[in-house]
Amino acid sequence: MSLKTFVLIFHSRDQKGIIAQISDFIFKQGGNIIAADQYSTDPSGGDFFIRIEFCTQDSDRLSLERNFRPIAEEFGAKCSFFEKNNFLRMGILVSKPDHCLLELLYLWRTGELRADIPMVISNHAPHQRVVEEHGISFFYVAANGSDRKERQILDLIKDKTDFLVLARYMLVLSGNFLNDYGKDIINIHHGLLPSFKGARPYHQAHAKGVKVIGATAHFANQELDEGPIIAQEVSQVSHRDDPAALLRKGKNIEKTALVHAVQSYLDYRVFNCGDRTVVF
Amino acid sequence: MSLKTFVLIFHSRDQKGIIAQISDFIFKQGGNIIAADQYSTDPSGGDFFIRIEFCTQDSDRLSLERNFRPIAEEFGAKCSFFEKNNFLRMGILVSKPDHCLLELLYLWRTGELRADIPMVISNHAPHQRVVEEHGISFFYVAANGSDRKERQILDLIKDKTDFLVLARYMLVLSGNFLNDYGKDIINIHHGLLPSFKGARPYHQAHAKGVKVIGATAHFANQELDEGPIIAQEVSQVSHRDDPAALLRKGKNIEKTALVHAVQSYLDYRVFNCGDRTVVF
Amino acid sequence: MSLKTFVLIFHSRDQKGIIAQISDFIFKQGGNIIAADQYSTDPSGGDFFIRIEFCTQDSDRLSLERNFRPIAEEFGAKCSFFEKNNFLRMGILVSKPDHCLLELLYLWRTGELRADIPMVISNHAPHQRVVEEHGISFFYVAANGSDRKERQILDLIKDKTDFLVLARYMLVLSGNFLNDYGKDIINIHHGLLPSFKGARPYHQAHAKGVKVIGATAHFANQELDEGPIIAQEVSQVSHRDDPAALLRKGKNIEKTALVHAVQSYLDYRVFNCGDRTVVF
Amino acid sequence: MSLKTFVLIFHSRDQKGIIAQISDFIFKQGGNIIAADQYSTDPSGGDFFIRIEFCTQDSDRLSLERNFRPIAEEFGAKCSFFEKNNFLRMGILVSKPDHCLLELLYLWRTGELRADIPMVISNHAPHQRVVEEHGISFFYVAANGSDRKERQILDLIKDKTDFLVLARYMLVLSGNFLNDYGKDIINIHHGLLPSFKGARPYHQAHAKGVKVIGATAHFANQELDEGPIIAQEVSQVSHRDDPAALLRKGKNIEKTALVHAVQSYLDYRVFNCGDRTVVF
Repeated sequence: MSLKTFVLIFHSRDQKGIIAQISDFIFKQGGNIIAADQYSTDPSGGDFFIRIEFCTQDSDRLSLERNFRPIAEEFGAKCSFFEKNNFLRMGILVSKPDHCLLELLYLWRTGELRADIPMVISNHAPHQRVVEEHGISFFYVAANGSDRKERQILDLIKDKTDFLVLARYMLVLSGNFLNDYGKDIINIHHGLLPSFKGARPYHQAHAKGVKVIGATAHFANQELDEGPIIAQEVSQVSHRDDPAALLRKGKNIEKTALVHAVQSYLDYRVFNCGDRTVVF
Repeated sequence: MSLKTFVLIFHSRDQKGIIAQISDFIFKQGGNIIAADQYSTDPSGGDFFIRIEFCTQDSDRLSLERNFRPIAEEFGAKCSFFEKNNFLRMGILVSKPDHCLLELLYLWRTGELRADIPMVISNHAPHQRVVEEHGISFFYVAANGSDRKERQILDLIKDKTDFLVLARYMLVLSGNFLNDYGKDIINIHHGLLPSFKGARPYHQAHAKGVKVIGATAHFANQELDEGPIIAQEVSQVSHRDDPAALLRKGKNIEKTALVHAVQSYLDYRVFNCGDRTVVF
Repeated sequence: MSLKTFVLIFHSRDQKGIIAQISDFIFKQGGNIIAADQYSTDPSGGDFFIRIEFCTQDSDRLSLERNFRPIAEEFGAKCSFFEKNNFLRMGILVSKPDHCLLELLYLWRTGELRADIPMVISNHAPHQRVVEEHGISFFYVAANGSDRKERQILDLIKDKTDFLVLARYMLVLSGNFLNDYGKDIINIHHGLLPSFKGARPYHQAHAKGVKVIGATAHFANQELDEGPIIAQEVSQVSHRDDPAALLRKGKNIEKTALVHAVQSYLDYRVFNCGDRTVVF
Repeated sequence: MSLKTFVLIFHSRDQKGIIAQISDFIFKQGGNIIAADQYSTDPSGGDFFIRIEFCTQDSDRLSLERNFRPIAEEFGAKCSFFEKNNFLRMGILVSKPDHCLLELLYLWRTGELRADIPMVISNHAPHQRVVEEHGISFFYVAANGSDRKERQILDLIKDKTDFLVLARYMLVLSGNFLNDYGKDIINIHHGLLPSFKGARPYHQAHAKGVKVIGATAHFANQELDEGPIIAQEVSQVSHRDDPAALLRKGKNIEKTALVHAVQSYLDYRVFNCGDRTVVF
């Protein structure tokens, strides 16, 4: 067998000996630890998170998971192994604004975004050309405020994607959609949550006369603009910036925050825990 | 007469010829313009702001204001002349947290904060030593939630200060206080307004799992934490930052935002216009 | 005539009355000043720079320049009027790295980069498709280290461009080229000049173990990587960033610094004065 | 025995099983790992660094080091255990500029800088008062360019400090001094190394017309301003900033970079490896 790199992500209550057992396990699998990140909310029994990247010649994902099961059960852990070269399948949902879409496609094309992109779905048909030029399937779904076409979208993504990115998608997804999909959804909001939820956040920011604007990448959940925050970016602004200028400046920080969140997610660095995230 | 530097600040409706008349006036007073900053919200009749710094050998503030009156009246302007070497008198009101107070005192001592500080007032007596070491009068006022001692504070500051800085003052000042004082009050809030108003903003920020915290220097008005924003500073944080860590990191951005606002104000760069500020 | 917006840029020795005369001139031309930025290195006779944006119904560029000539001569000024809606013609020269090119094309397409782009010239043929998709002429010039094809490039750009952008062009241009072209050339260097001149600056940065990397947009002159700096962007890095990671992170700051410089230039905000720039 | 927190720092060639053995060791000592940071330059035999923070009821530093010796020897590691509540002894050497000194004293007083400060040494006598007000010993040493009094300084610090901070010390220390002292020395340089080494870096920066200035905290070594970089901070500047303004702005970034470096060092997060540092 050839040398492969795996990532283990592991989340449990904090207890003595977790790292010892995990690293002993990896050693016995012939593995060499490349990177380890660990975080405890409270060593006396809080949440314990660890991400370990290791390489080994003698293993595959399924046997790792099978062999590791006793340890996982002992600590009551939620955990998974991933093989680094098996990319996650990322679906993209996008409305008219194209700056986030183009950034994701560019980084995918240059190999900096280590994902498969089985499809882009949009309610804005003109995106078709640039998407297909990248050799990616494009589906036009005529969703709008009165008919969100959620069933049609679900049929497209459910089996073919591991997670979904809302790269400036202007329609709110229903709780039913989230439940049926059942996997992670990353959204980019053009405001520094929790301020400026909802529509036209740059106009809200201008009305308040803020001197800093922001963008927030977060997991979508049932509450609009309320899911756990993964990444935030900011930019200084001044009285000279009218709402149109804020919109322009905002595009850069939206791209940056979304890419940061997606890159971290693809690298298995994001733990979604309640109202917060741990991002290694 | 010796060479003096003056600052003119001028705010009116936008009209043709304002700059021509102002600069012609300065020229005829024998002045040489050192710096000019101008901003129009809408050239076809919006708000017009200008700050002009000029030096002249042949003038004083009162005669400048008198001679300029016809122009001010023609344009319906709110305007003032200041002589740069006549410092504004800045009162400081502070509770127990001392990081903003110490920063202001340090910069005042090194000459970087071009203000007179006639007094520091505090409901925390131990600040007395460091204040008096700087040769500044200190008044202990035993204000607390049930008795804010506003009358006592007003008697101290009313005639002796040109503006007031709340350098982490933990009691809310009443509308009566603001009205009676009648001059500008700059407050530092340890949150990125408009998020996290009110008490314990870093705990609020932690509960929300934000990845960016901020501090906001703003004019105090009758609404708590709602006055026009002058300066904001931000800092990236992560899941590793518990509320205590946010508090520590926050001290730096609070100092920076407050000093930025106060320096701008002392240099006559801040226009307070409705819900927003113009800061040159 | 319709309402037009003009920009006057003006550079002279500092003297009394300049702003008065300029603003009086604009007033007499029926103009209304929209924005004014001014900078003096030393009010007692240093350099004086001013940029004034004004609108008027009754004028055109040539008559403004003609009428203004006496004032320009009185103050010994270098000055020009530009009509804001007559865009500058920007030539682009680019080698294989495409991130700066794509950013410029994107912002041009969305109308955020207010320029005409008569052509893109490259020694990397595959850029042809994306350039022509934007409706812009593309010229492949097989320049390389041993034959820079400067004559061929000059013939293409000399009459058709107002300035040139080197959007990651990997060949050094000769002094003859700079002289023959005779107009401004903006280059992006992937290092925080004056550190890390020359080749492979990210490798140099990594070898030095820096914790901050940068990119520098500057005017090209006869000295390699020595021309006046227009804009610089930085990014925090750590020991985890190997040269490849620095290269990836660097792409973002290169784009940002170059776009900042080009936007400022197109908006007539950049004065090139000796070893430094003034950027309003 | 009571619950104690220890930090293990460990540096060796990369090999399989290191983390397994270390974490097993900690487990067998009854320890619970609170935080772990690990970095490998190259998993197939490069440098391996790990910092592990753990708490235990049943141990002390000496027995930990004794019991761990076989593991250290097996891997050929350079390693140490530290008890978190036994603070390092930090000597401070400072010339006239006081902003870094005051920041260190402030953070020490508030408990944010977890160090003992046995002494401050200065060739600027007026610092005595503020140092002694903090209950810290002050030594005036009349060092200057022609007599650096290195022997006198060494006699003061050699046995009483674990490391030394040059908090803006304007004299160059000789190689003999560095050798005789034999412990780490952290310096703050007011330039973004490797640019602007040596004297008057802000004047150099101004002459070059840079748009970003910086400060660098680094280990002192025999080459002036060449030691491994620990932390760097930057600030955007413009043509309006003359050398005096750069100096003022620089004070903030100098303090921030130095405090960042010192805090990291006190928390045993800094590995000095050749020309670079690893800072967890």
